[in-house]
Amino acid sequence: MKQQAEELFEEIRAFRRDLHEHPELSGEEMETSKKIQVKLDEYGIHYFTGYAKTGVLAVIEGGKPGKTVGLRADIDALPITEKANVPFKSKVDGKMHACGHDAHTAMLLGVGKLLQQQKDKIAGTVLLIFQPAEENAPTGGADQMMADGVFERYQPDVILAQHVWPGLPAGQVGVIDGAIMGNSDRFHVTIHGAGGHASMPHQTIDAIVIANQVMSAIQTIISRNANPMDSGVITIGKISGGYRYNVVADSVVLEGTIRSLSDETKKLLKKRFHEVVKGTTEMMGGSCEIDYSDGYPATVNTKRWAEVVRDSAKRQLGTESAPEVIGSMAGEDFGRFLKKYEGVYYWLGTSVGETQKPLHDPGFMIDEQALSIGTGLMAQAALDVLAELNN
Amino acid sequence: MKQQAEELFEEIRAFRRDLHEHPELSGEEMETSKKIQVKLDEYGIHYFTGYAKTGVLAVIEGGKPGKTVGLRADIDALPITEKANVPFKSKVDGKMHACGHDAHTAMLLGVGKLLQQQKDKIAGTVLLIFQPAEENAPTGGADQMMADGVFERYQPDVILAQHVWPGLPAGQVGVIDGAIMGNSDRFHVTIHGAGGHASMPHQTIDAIVIANQVMSAIQTIISRNANPMDSGVITIGKISGGYRYNVVADSVVLEGTIRSLSDETKKLLKKRFHEVVKGTTEMMGGSCEIDYSDGYPATVNTKRWAEVVRDSAKRQLGTESAPEVIGSMAGEDFGRFLKKYEGVYYWLGTSVGETQKPLHDPGFMIDEQALSIGTGLMAQAALDVLAELNN
Amino acid sequence: MKQQAEELFEEIRAFRRDLHEHPELSGEEMETSKKIQVKLDEYGIHYFTGYAKTGVLAVIEGGKPGKTVGLRADIDALPITEKANVPFKSKVDGKMHACGHDAHTAMLLGVGKLLQQQKDKIAGTVLLIFQPAEENAPTGGADQMMADGVFERYQPDVILAQHVWPGLPAGQVGVIDGAIMGNSDRFHVTIHGAGGHASMPHQTIDAIVIANQVMSAIQTIISRNANPMDSGVITIGKISGGYRYNVVADSVVLEGTIRSLSDETKKLLKKRFHEVVKGTTEMMGGSCEIDYSDGYPATVNTKRWAEVVRDSAKRQLGTESAPEVIGSMAGEDFGRFLKKYEGVYYWLGTSVGETQKPLHDPGFMIDEQALSIGTGLMAQAALDVLAELNN
Amino acid sequence: MKQQAEELFEEIRAFRRDLHEHPELSGEEMETSKKIQVKLDEYGIHYFTGYAKTGVLAVIEGGKPGKTVGLRADIDALPITEKANVPFKSKVDGKMHACGHDAHTAMLLGVGKLLQQQKDKIAGTVLLIFQPAEENAPTGGADQMMADGVFERYQPDVILAQHVWPGLPAGQVGVIDGAIMGNSDRFHVTIHGAGGHASMPHQTIDAIVIANQVMSAIQTIISRNANPMDSGVITIGKISGGYRYNVVADSVVLEGTIRSLSDETKKLLKKRFHEVVKGTTEMMGGSCEIDYSDGYPATVNTKRWAEVVRDSAKRQLGTESAPEVIGSMAGEDFGRFLKKYEGVYYWLGTSVGETQKPLHDPGFMIDEQALSIGTGLMAQAALDVLAELNN
Repeated sequence: MKQQAEELFEEIRAFRRDLHEHPELSGEEMETSKKIQVKLDEYGIHYFTGYAKTGVLAVIEGGKPGKTVGLRADIDALPITEKANVPFKSKVDGKMHACGHDAHTAMLLGVGKLLQQQKDKIAGTVLLIFQPAEENAPTGGADQMMADGVFERYQPDVILAQHVWPGLPAGQVGVIDGAIMGNSDRFHVTIHGAGGHASMPHQTIDAIVIANQVMSAIQTIISRNANPMDSGVITIGKISGGYRYNVVADSVVLEGTIRSLSDETKKLLKKRFHEVVKGTTEMMGGSCEIDYSDGYPATVNTKRWAEVVRDSAKRQLGTESAPEVIGSMAGEDFGRFLKKYEGVYYWLGTSVGETQKPLHDPGFMIDEQALSIGTGLMAQAALDVLAELNN
Repeated sequence: MKQQAEELFEEIRAFRRDLHEHPELSGEEMETSKKIQVKLDEYGIHYFTGYAKTGVLAVIEGGKPGKTVGLRADIDALPITEKANVPFKSKVDGKMHACGHDAHTAMLLGVGKLLQQQKDKIAGTVLLIFQPAEENAPTGGADQMMADGVFERYQPDVILAQHVWPGLPAGQVGVIDGAIMGNSDRFHVTIHGAGGHASMPHQTIDAIVIANQVMSAIQTIISRNANPMDSGVITIGKISGGYRYNVVADSVVLEGTIRSLSDETKKLLKKRFHEVVKGTTEMMGGSCEIDYSDGYPATVNTKRWAEVVRDSAKRQLGTESAPEVIGSMAGEDFGRFLKKYEGVYYWLGTSVGETQKPLHDPGFMIDEQALSIGTGLMAQAALDVLAELNN
Repeated sequence: MKQQAEELFEEIRAFRRDLHEHPELSGEEMETSKKIQVKLDEYGIHYFTGYAKTGVLAVIEGGKPGKTVGLRADIDALPITEKANVPFKSKVDGKMHACGHDAHTAMLLGVGKLLQQQKDKIAGTVLLIFQPAEENAPTGGADQMMADGVFERYQPDVILAQHVWPGLPAGQVGVIDGAIMGNSDRFHVTIHGAGGHASMPHQTIDAIVIANQVMSAIQTIISRNANPMDSGVITIGKISGGYRYNVVADSVVLEGTIRSLSDETKKLLKKRFHEVVKGTTEMMGGSCEIDYSDGYPATVNTKRWAEVVRDSAKRQLGTESAPEVIGSMAGEDFGRFLKKYEGVYYWLGTSVGETQKPLHDPGFMIDEQALSIGTGLMAQAALDVLAELNN
Repeated sequence: MKQQAEELFEEIRAFRRDLHEHPELSGEEMETSKKIQVKLDEYGIHYFTGYAKTGVLAVIEGGKPGKTVGLRADIDALPITEKANVPFKSKVDGKMHACGHDAHTAMLLGVGKLLQQQKDKIAGTVLLIFQPAEENAPTGGADQMMADGVFERYQPDVILAQHVWPGLPAGQVGVIDGAIMGNSDRFHVTIHGAGGHASMPHQTIDAIVIANQVMSAIQTIISRNANPMDSGVITIGKISGGYRYNVVADSVVLEGTIRSLSDETKKLLKKRFHEVVKGTTEMMGGSCEIDYSDGYPATVNTKRWAEVVRDSAKRQLGTESAPEVIGSMAGEDFGRFLKKYEGVYYWLGTSVGETQKPLHDPGFMIDEQALSIGTGLMAQAALDVLAELNN
């Protein structure tokens, strides 16, 4: 399977680069979806559309009876302007595949081609699930696909997904028994003051200065309120306020996310966040609106299937290919699928080495050698899971 | 003259409201300029154009020989969305006459009409100077008008300007011997960090958190470094940074202004601002670019002409009409005219009472009764200045 | 008189240096008081004691009838460890005459000697008032001396005081018509959190981190809430909190002062201070006690007597000796005397030049040449005031 | 053994309460040491003194040959004023056994009495190690005891210690394979500014305002620089600065501790701490001295002996008595013993329930029922370890 995947390398890479040059944001993946369908047609794989608008379900029914395994790739890009120096740089200003969904999609198509070629030998059914809007937390696309009936015809017994991972080199994977990704809440705070002329601050309530006090106080939630033996993050990812250099701002908007692994810390951070934002704003003479969304739940792998995937990796990539890793507090819509179905979410090593930039960075890149590795591994894992299910 | 101005009230108000409904930003005052020209044509006043693109110079040559007095109004609006509840609310989203330049312009046209009607009796020349881009500090429109030759044909011996003032009621004016408006510098700071995934702050240098430390430290420049017996203000009027709630921001832009009355404090604030922004940014692991513009100089009235204007007011509006006032740290492009010509800049009371919002506030309003008062006063002051000049 | 004072120079200096070496804190000026009495005995000046414990009232009754002028010196030192490199450095660790009261006292004794020598020629009475506890705001010693009957026997018609001033050179004085020193309030804030082990912050409410947020927010009162055209200062002079490096602090004490010139700003700063301290503390999960004392009122000179003193200076020290100065926001207990009696508080230039440290600095020094200047001037001013009073 | 310990309950409690009423600080445990020696004499246990000044080594040589097990108790108290409402409250103002060392000491004496009574049956030697100055990190008493030859005569093959634990109820213990306590560094920072009069901040460099900026920036080290999947704490436990409410502070001292579990995070926090303190101080115009001590290393249990102790607990206290616990970032001098000898450090449940205050809190209390439990468990564990060693 590994060798077969290597033969597909150029095709997978070409498709990935095409997506990379033409990124589409969450919920707007129209062209991406069409390209996927064109490929599926080319491979002769039957598919259904209309899930979460742009989502696609492709079905490979094996030649023998058996259980059903689902394989999922997310397909959307981020509102980031690419700064990576690659020949296939994003052609859309302000949009970029900075989270590797282009690679996920291309690899899943590669998996489809491989399995379709040998479908007669497969005992059971393989579902290829192309999911939109993963970056659009807390709404996401997973729940909407399920609401739109993606699993009405075929119920997966186990569902798998892989994510490119800059912390591991190509040839290694990260598989965890239990929680691999964290709770991921989202907030949108508007702070209101009172505007006025920049030279007369005493006649105003400066919303930017309020925001400043709020952001300072927020740091102490992590540094002092959270249990240091647990994990928690509060990131304000975007700030915007004011009109002009010489007008005191009457409002500021803060957008961000709160991450944690445990329920206890999630509740604490949420509670303190509300207290700190409201208390500080009012102490400064302003007011605020807090729009807080409980987001993606933790992504919790099923131990049984994590072991199967780890074995698939070791056999295909060597005994050292699945080192111990610690979980991440990134949120992941796949957690919603794992709330309903057993399964595994694993990391696929794609590090480019010392120049590696993190996920969501304007300079993010992957080692494309991993494209065939991920394709081969996912195809093999699908077969191994089916074998175990049919056992 | 006061009575004549009252008879013009409805016309001035109508013109002011028309401008108010159709605000144009600094440097884009095309329609405003055209409307001024139409009125001048209607009044039979000769004018020249082409100064600072949209500026207009109208000339009323008196029937008798004499000196020359210039009267100036600024004509541009601000990028603010109006929130005032008035029937003639701005029809342009994101633009508003929140600094009263609509009133200044309408009153100067009224002054022109009044003086044109009695030009035969005037000994000397009256210049009506309609100046664009006053809000676009530090560039402004005053220097450009002079560079474009606005005073080539006619050199003013004295130049006057008035500004609506929310701190005084209609019927009162604020006249100061010496500095009435302050030094007004402008900054545009870009803070650079390193982006990444919102759940992995340790792999990033969070530009929003850097900006937060910078803004905290800036407060101490005013609270601890500046001489409390002098005056100083640092306002960050606009902040924007980051891309998305779940991406750590790799840059933040801060725009603002630094005000002072004395040169000593101006220099201190400028020096500490640079030290604090650079030092904090680097301590936090980031870098920054500081684009700092020394802006409008203080607006310093000539004592002799301040006394003349004060007398004009007292005779026309009563002995209590010119109370003692303290200067403001607002910047004013008129300071540039006063660097070259003697003159006076005075405040025209326009307070609407308890519901008054400050200048540059989205809810700013004026007491329109002041429109005829300001028209009558400026016309009278022009004649009084000419009389004194010709003396 | 100037020459006579110069002849006393060595004696005044010796007394001043003796006090400097043996500073005593507010309310504890036992030895200082005794030394003053010894000198008064030596000069044959009659005196009374028992005012505010250590205060002394000496009386020089002139040979001719007339009005009464009071001359006041403060006698207490500060809890500061001297770092000035002088041969007569404080011998008491933790105590220092860092505000020049040693000089005030020595000069007033010199004035007494001079006037006592020529008492027969004096028309009226001169009171020498040695006041303790000036540094102990807001209690002070002035009110207590008056409560203890210091003016029962002799009522001053006018009262004068001088203060060494590091901002003027020897030979110059600062005299202001009206407010020369500001409102001076005092606060003592205790912030309560909950202690615990340093490694388990989540089980505590860290009072030091609360204090940190409070102090940040306090800066914004001056930088954003106060009118920049008025003057205001909030200084936290002392902070102490916690027990040990590895125990989370359960309380922090902040001590400081709030200064202003106008009543309006005084009220605003007081109000915002309470809001900010309480609001921030509660938002952080703690509680606080605010002990706030309205302190010394502004020191407001009587214009008539300011003019007399200014004239005395010009005649004795030259026409350039009384330059225009701007007031200070230091608090001064003498304001309490000026609430009841007309009078003048003026600054005596004592700058040592480039190495000058400010008042209350551990390295504060004076130019001792000013000792005879101040002695001569105060003696002359006393006579000039009497002359004007008797006129 | 459990029953025998229960019979000793009153004696152990009496001894613990006596120590509690008479706490002695690190390095000053003279009376405590004497009391220990009196008890050892009473029990007929031979001992040696002179280790780390007040440390005691008692030796129980069993009747049969065998290996050697060391049991260690720390004996010093903390500089905290007790606020717990107990009849045996500390009689020394400013000193308190707020970390349970009184209990550790009393229990170890109980263990000694029990084992001495049955020494004939013991195969091997039991060392009772009474260690001073555990709270005096980073110096501690462990290294000094070893330097003073505490293990010259008898080398322990395994060494055990127990610590009262407010997070577990009496009857439970916390035993971890590997790191149970963290890296514990200590800092003492002096920030220098320039003093002056509280009303003239512009002539000073306010050290308290510098410290404020420093402390704000320090929060961001934990909230943004540290890996949220690892553990780190920076606590400023004590702050003191300034002289008086009306003098600007020229220096502030910050004392605190930095905790971590991994070497990587330890290094990162140390590096950022230096950068942040120095960078902020200099940006604010001041200077600083950082006295940083690398402190107690992590306390890492030997898995083999952790299992033995866990078994001892389960047999004596029930199968549910050793729940899974997560490590703590408290520092512990016992880590120094475990650098040289195999062994186990375990937590003894002593929670008093809902009113429990944390370790080092002025209101800290223990459930004294745990005194006999801890005595019985440690005695049993010592025998079980010897049995395993001799196996």
